[in-house]
Amino acid sequence: MLSWNRYGKARVRLVRVDKSQPDHQLIDLTIDVQLEGAFEKVYTDGDNSACVPTDTMKNTVYALAKKHAVARVEPFLVQLCDHFAAKPGVSRVRISAIEQPWARLNAHAFAHAGAEQWTCVATRDARGTEIVSGLTGLVLLKTTDSAFAGYPRDEYTTLPETHDRIMATSMTAVWTYRNTSVDFGAREQIVNALVHTFAEHRSESVQHTLYAMGEAALGAAPEITEITLTLPNRHHLLVDLKPFGLENQNEIFVATDQPFGLIEATLRRQA
Amino acid sequence: MLSWNRYGKARVRLVRVDKSQPDHQLIDLTIDVQLEGAFEKVYTDGDNSACVPTDTMKNTVYALAKKHAVARVEPFLVQLCDHFAAKPGVSRVRISAIEQPWARLNAHAFAHAGAEQWTCVATRDARGTEIVSGLTGLVLLKTTDSAFAGYPRDEYTTLPETHDRIMATSMTAVWTYRNTSVDFGAREQIVNALVHTFAEHRSESVQHTLYAMGEAALGAAPEITEITLTLPNRHHLLVDLKPFGLENQNEIFVATDQPFGLIEATLRRQA
Amino acid sequence: MLSWNRYGKARVRLVRVDKSQPDHQLIDLTIDVQLEGAFEKVYTDGDNSACVPTDTMKNTVYALAKKHAVARVEPFLVQLCDHFAAKPGVSRVRISAIEQPWARLNAHAFAHAGAEQWTCVATRDARGTEIVSGLTGLVLLKTTDSAFAGYPRDEYTTLPETHDRIMATSMTAVWTYRNTSVDFGAREQIVNALVHTFAEHRSESVQHTLYAMGEAALGAAPEITEITLTLPNRHHLLVDLKPFGLENQNEIFVATDQPFGLIEATLRRQA
Amino acid sequence: MLSWNRYGKARVRLVRVDKSQPDHQLIDLTIDVQLEGAFEKVYTDGDNSACVPTDTMKNTVYALAKKHAVARVEPFLVQLCDHFAAKPGVSRVRISAIEQPWARLNAHAFAHAGAEQWTCVATRDARGTEIVSGLTGLVLLKTTDSAFAGYPRDEYTTLPETHDRIMATSMTAVWTYRNTSVDFGAREQIVNALVHTFAEHRSESVQHTLYAMGEAALGAAPEITEITLTLPNRHHLLVDLKPFGLENQNEIFVATDQPFGLIEATLRRQA
Repeated sequence: MLSWNRYGKARVRLVRVDKSQPDHQLIDLTIDVQLEGAFEKVYTDGDNSACVPTDTMKNTVYALAKKHAVARVEPFLVQLCDHFAAKPGVSRVRISAIEQPWARLNAHAFAHAGAEQWTCVATRDARGTEIVSGLTGLVLLKTTDSAFAGYPRDEYTTLPETHDRIMATSMTAVWTYRNTSVDFGAREQIVNALVHTFAEHRSESVQHTLYAMGEAALGAAPEITEITLTLPNRHHLLVDLKPFGLENQNEIFVATDQPFGLIEATLRRQA
Repeated sequence: MLSWNRYGKARVRLVRVDKSQPDHQLIDLTIDVQLEGAFEKVYTDGDNSACVPTDTMKNTVYALAKKHAVARVEPFLVQLCDHFAAKPGVSRVRISAIEQPWARLNAHAFAHAGAEQWTCVATRDARGTEIVSGLTGLVLLKTTDSAFAGYPRDEYTTLPETHDRIMATSMTAVWTYRNTSVDFGAREQIVNALVHTFAEHRSESVQHTLYAMGEAALGAAPEITEITLTLPNRHHLLVDLKPFGLENQNEIFVATDQPFGLIEATLRRQA
Repeated sequence: MLSWNRYGKARVRLVRVDKSQPDHQLIDLTIDVQLEGAFEKVYTDGDNSACVPTDTMKNTVYALAKKHAVARVEPFLVQLCDHFAAKPGVSRVRISAIEQPWARLNAHAFAHAGAEQWTCVATRDARGTEIVSGLTGLVLLKTTDSAFAGYPRDEYTTLPETHDRIMATSMTAVWTYRNTSVDFGAREQIVNALVHTFAEHRSESVQHTLYAMGEAALGAAPEITEITLTLPNRHHLLVDLKPFGLENQNEIFVATDQPFGLIEATLRRQA
Repeated sequence: MLSWNRYGKARVRLVRVDKSQPDHQLIDLTIDVQLEGAFEKVYTDGDNSACVPTDTMKNTVYALAKKHAVARVEPFLVQLCDHFAAKPGVSRVRISAIEQPWARLNAHAFAHAGAEQWTCVATRDARGTEIVSGLTGLVLLKTTDSAFAGYPRDEYTTLPETHDRIMATSMTAVWTYRNTSVDFGAREQIVNALVHTFAEHRSESVQHTLYAMGEAALGAAPEITEITLTLPNRHHLLVDLKPFGLENQNEIFVATDQPFGLIEATLRRQA
């Protein structure tokens, strides 16, 4: 009757400081460990003989962070995958991390670099290890070069066409590396390509801009094979000022939280 | 290069009041509409001729809520699926809802019934329509009848075995209905079975209790074919009072938010 | 130059279980300790000789919870006030708590009783100790008996008058006890009076209903001297269905999060 | 019996775009309007003849944003104060705003500038108008130059002294301007002084650093008369790696959310 199971430890908070050089180095991760495997008897019989405690998973994260002197998230998640994949009964390991970026103030002081966070998921099973990195919460807005027109109308359509609107989003992107032996330094180029394209694109829709952004990211980083973008449409609505004898020439907007459009797509590099 | 795409409107807030009887009826839904289909040109060419605006999706939710006099979430989501599946190019429709339960105070006044919310996802594609209902955020705690022992130890294990601990969780459950023509009134029996089993089970682990809960739910509702339970382990740690000359006999605990164990499994009814 | 200072420990999570009777008792508190006093040298000179560590405050909460067998929040906060007020230099102690209510399932299992939480603040200074209890997050809605009309109009008024609208709020209430020697069992009568009045009142405005609720609470509990109510107006707007050829007779609403009206007032018992 | 009352509209979302120059200008505010005054009959009698609707307040924010071409938050809040103070019965107006800072990407595209937000509160009553500006959510961390020792010990003290710890906080600061006719351009100097001092100070405690930060801010901006700093102590705890045969030399930390120290103080410029 048990058709699927997974267990692990979520939100293991790990900060490592490397003071070996005058400029201290800081890495700030929140890690989830998840295991799948032959754990049926834990569920059906209350037999814990194969059940690595989630508390041990947490300890392992800290011990391996020390042993491997974690400096970059991707190789560390691979090391954690390798460790847990060797445990009896484990068929699949998924290690995910949220990384908080910090900007340097001086040799030993830092500030949060922005509202966005970086993400990484490493998955290891019989087919190998896959690394998917990304970022989330990068909020972008453009005041022009965004249109939405030419769409089909039905009995429930009231939206007026527009050729000049605000476009705003809180971007989430995840990309898949070709394999685990690439250099994992592509984040900066990918993010730059995404942001630059958002800013410069003449947009016919969020979908249209999403595609241009994905193309630019794939062009900027040959070591990735695909990218998935999730772009909520943070609608900014024109306020009707006519009742007050005022004309609103694309100047006064109300920013809305909900409802919101949500556009998602995956672009894969052609073979 | 576009290997997958989906778009829609998220968080359409809908409250319907039926005042046709002395006891007013209230349904409170937050709905997401998501479409997949032949929308490539929207992305690649900025051609919106096949792109139903997400604003129209929102309008459609309100108009159909009026036309169909929505009273229960599952049939209404099926009606929305049918409507959007008939649009050109659409290959898959996913409508999800969060339902806020309200408890009656008198004929026309209500209070939030608890912290938990109900969920429903209806998916329609070429294979048919699937209905998955559930609930999330139901917080449960038991002060005894929970053990965790007999687990494997390795070089990173420090957890002491326990035969009497607090077990607490914030339950999420989703279950799949056999088909769309069943009566969708099973929620109450399922939730009662889950909660009763949590309360009465002599637990060897969260996994062990999860399985018993899932079995009870499948037993209580023949119209569901499987159930997935997600049980975070809200750890309550004994406070060490020895430095203060006090003995803590399972009395004083610190409730922790993170890290937390996370146990998930699906139980499927045997054919 | 230092004109005011306060320091302490926030969010000390304390759960106490009393298993001395067959029906286990559970109290679940999140406590903040805040001290004011003659701590200038800590700030100006880096001299910590008068600075009780916030870590010690946390330990004290747990140790006193054991020693005093905390069973009800108000007397426990008074005990904490008395403890910290005796420390050198302290002129004012403020102890606040959020209490999570739990509903009993059986002798040893519990569920969150609702979305609301209870609050308590005890303050001790040279003038004595004051106890302010309350609750927050109790969400209420009525489908009729709520009007808003007769208000002044100016050049920026567009709101139509209404004689039948939805009224909804997430209530926060705090009330002050006459002194610290009263029985602190009034919460249930006060909440019942507030909720019953919300449900039954024929409302001309949120303000009008707030006042009736406050009066009812003061009437229900002679041991309180004043009550402050904070009532956000969770607007439910009629959806315009005319573009779809449908008439909306107070049936289909959109629930909005922001902006929202916010109505606050204090009612004090006349001497 | 009504001893205090206040009402208004909260979270009015306003975005103004000025496209009059090649570089578009963007201001993004969330505004609360709150009025106190002679509104007793609204509460006691359901008489709305003096009750300006909160919906009108919202409209007024948008209309005045257009009329006054809002470009900086402080003067706009003063204009709103003046408008509402002229309404019958109003004795006190409080207008507060959260400002989202945006960083320019090109002439018409922007990104969230960081996780922090700016704040402003303008209050007008019979004594005049006061402006308090500030910021919140600026997260800072230093890896060294932070100690905590020499504190008093009692029966509940277990904290070891430290001469080298991580210090981290999420800063909230608010400062009061001398009057309403100053230039309100001091934010950048104040924030620079606060951040620079946090980074460079040799800290004996959070209090000690708070004071140095406040002094620096007062020194950097003669137009402010006082500053209040709220510094939660985001504890980073050394992980005990000894059970795993590893030594942790100030390298591996667990970042904790709760409990946390909370240090607050006001520094006022001496006359």
